[in-house]
Amino acid sequence: MTPITKRIGVLGAGQLGRMLAIAGYPLGQKFGFYGTSDDEPSALLGHMYKQSDDTNSLDKLVEFSDVITYESENTSIEQVREIAKTTPVYPAEKSLFIAQHRGREKGMFDQLNIPCAPYQIVDSLESLKLAVEEIGLPAVLKTTTEGYDGKGQFVLKEVSQVDQAWSEIGGRELVLEGFINFQRELSIVAVRNANNEHVYYPLVQNVHHEGILRYTIAPAREISAEIQQQAEHYMQSLLDELDHVGVLTLEVFETVDGLVANEMAPRVHNSGHWTIEGAYTSQFENHVRAITGMPLGDTSPRQPIAAMINIIGETGPVEKVLTMPNAFLHLYDKEERAGRKLGHINVIAVDEDSLYKDIQRLSDFLPKM
Amino acid sequence: MTPITKRIGVLGAGQLGRMLAIAGYPLGQKFGFYGTSDDEPSALLGHMYKQSDDTNSLDKLVEFSDVITYESENTSIEQVREIAKTTPVYPAEKSLFIAQHRGREKGMFDQLNIPCAPYQIVDSLESLKLAVEEIGLPAVLKTTTEGYDGKGQFVLKEVSQVDQAWSEIGGRELVLEGFINFQRELSIVAVRNANNEHVYYPLVQNVHHEGILRYTIAPAREISAEIQQQAEHYMQSLLDELDHVGVLTLEVFETVDGLVANEMAPRVHNSGHWTIEGAYTSQFENHVRAITGMPLGDTSPRQPIAAMINIIGETGPVEKVLTMPNAFLHLYDKEERAGRKLGHINVIAVDEDSLYKDIQRLSDFLPKM
Repeated sequence: MTPITKRIGVLGAGQLGRMLAIAGYPLGQKFGFYGTSDDEPSALLGHMYKQSDDTNSLDKLVEFSDVITYESENTSIEQVREIAKTTPVYPAEKSLFIAQHRGREKGMFDQLNIPCAPYQIVDSLESLKLAVEEIGLPAVLKTTTEGYDGKGQFVLKEVSQVDQAWSEIGGRELVLEGFINFQRELSIVAVRNANNEHVYYPLVQNVHHEGILRYTIAPAREISAEIQQQAEHYMQSLLDELDHVGVLTLEVFETVDGLVANEMAPRVHNSGHWTIEGAYTSQFENHVRAITGMPLGDTSPRQPIAAMINIIGETGPVEKVLTMPNAFLHLYDKEERAGRKLGHINVIAVDEDSLYKDIQRLSDFLPKM
Repeated sequence: MTPITKRIGVLGAGQLGRMLAIAGYPLGQKFGFYGTSDDEPSALLGHMYKQSDDTNSLDKLVEFSDVITYESENTSIEQVREIAKTTPVYPAEKSLFIAQHRGREKGMFDQLNIPCAPYQIVDSLESLKLAVEEIGLPAVLKTTTEGYDGKGQFVLKEVSQVDQAWSEIGGRELVLEGFINFQRELSIVAVRNANNEHVYYPLVQNVHHEGILRYTIAPAREISAEIQQQAEHYMQSLLDELDHVGVLTLEVFETVDGLVANEMAPRVHNSGHWTIEGAYTSQFENHVRAITGMPLGDTSPRQPIAAMINIIGETGPVEKVLTMPNAFLHLYDKEERAGRKLGHINVIAVDEDSLYKDIQRLSDFLPKM
């Protein structure tokens, strides 16, 4: 063990933990995971503490760890609070508390003067009808908690759909969000460490299909310095307000009136996967650096433009990827299943034209859009 | 598990296994290691089959594995032969047999018309004296097997040293090599897969101190296309003659009469570590691709020039590395000990001047030469 080695415990053992470990071992760190099965993507990449093995598995992970982090904003607050009594957890409770509830998240956007869609929390068919009147249609109805990849959402176009929407995802707390007329979906990944260093990756452009991110262009084209600065300013406000340590991601809409916040994630993010080969320091390495008290690394791209293409549902013709010099395969060791994220492909290029040609060559991995 | 996943068993659990795993997981592969202790560099990066645990540990590794590879040319031939009855071992027995004996290695260089130093095998003080007369001095006396990092070598400058040399490293089979008047020490890493694809990395320049590689410049400066082609031609002959599958490395001397072969290693090599961030495909990824039947990846550098600096003995001021945007830290999770390889630093640069400035900033990691 080198003198700088820290033991990192991860709540979860999916692909994000896997990529954190792959980035963290070269820094001398060690990893342990709190997971459910030996088939999970992180299972071979460190000590595995399985929930099913032993009621004390979580205690054992905590005992192993110098610092704890997590893969999901749906991590239990109570668990994190309990662990934090003995072992630092980064990002800390406040980041998790805010990010796991759309209502609290939007409240914080408002507080920090970060523009977001008009919204109203509803918890009954009645209150939903009132909210529809106030906000107008079209609007998006979402669960306040636990939604991801387009799950737990209903796009309301007409008043006649209100009953159906409530019966499909209601019976619990929801938020109705006014529809944003956006040009592009963008996101920004930022990192803060406990020494109050802040670094920001460039804004990237995300293309979704059926609620799932399909590809990212990094950096997003035609972003003015002002827009990048605006995004960084929003991130700085959020990072400081949350006293956040680690990676924080914000999804934003680009509109004619500027950026409008959609949602944030207190973790490494799918739209940041391009950074593995695409940036001097990946989001995964910077998260590890941040939570272990290391200085943060350079977030600049290593090439003019890059893309990240998700591999969804089927592994697909990966030989194609392997024969393209500028394409990099990242599989997560998961069984094929419709709609499941099995891996991603990073592509780097000298200009936009050649990037789009390469994306075209990889069109097997993209939905017919 | 994805449809393309292969289980790779590694004989050894050191830093080479560690870096193979870090490169192989993104391709969907799984790893197991045959090692001696849970403190070894690879121990957390896959299934660990410890020699001490169980007399059947090796059988269990073989049972786990679709393909077996190894970290060292000192791997037992008998072991490899036994495993190969049930499970492919790459590189196969012949590569190991030749590479683990300096006499056989030089015999193959002769057979393939690859220039090497004049040499003679000696096994007694008498035969050493005769060899010294024939080859002349200065000359280097080496053990025929198991030498690495300058161990098991004696530089003979005068006839009066012959007795001392024999008493220090003799009593076993040795080889006396005529001294080569070289300008630089270079090496080349090549890869071949079972489909007979060959790829070659550019020649790199290696600087040793007290027998240990201290830094590598990649590509080596002022290498003509003819010299690179000559090196590739030698590698192709060796790869084909050995029916080699995986990475093969050749150390060569640059002399006024062209390249002179020094020694080869049937494995990923310290002088190829720059490829992790420095090439489109690293030597580690290409070894994994080769032994699992995947197409080989592009060996081109991603930037004009790069360096690899070994971290020897002490971990040192690694914070310096972390604050340099173009420097990449690779620690092996090993205890500090004099002369031990604990990690390396890759540096990438736009030109030679800025590279040497960066190396200067990292001079704490270099011996006073």
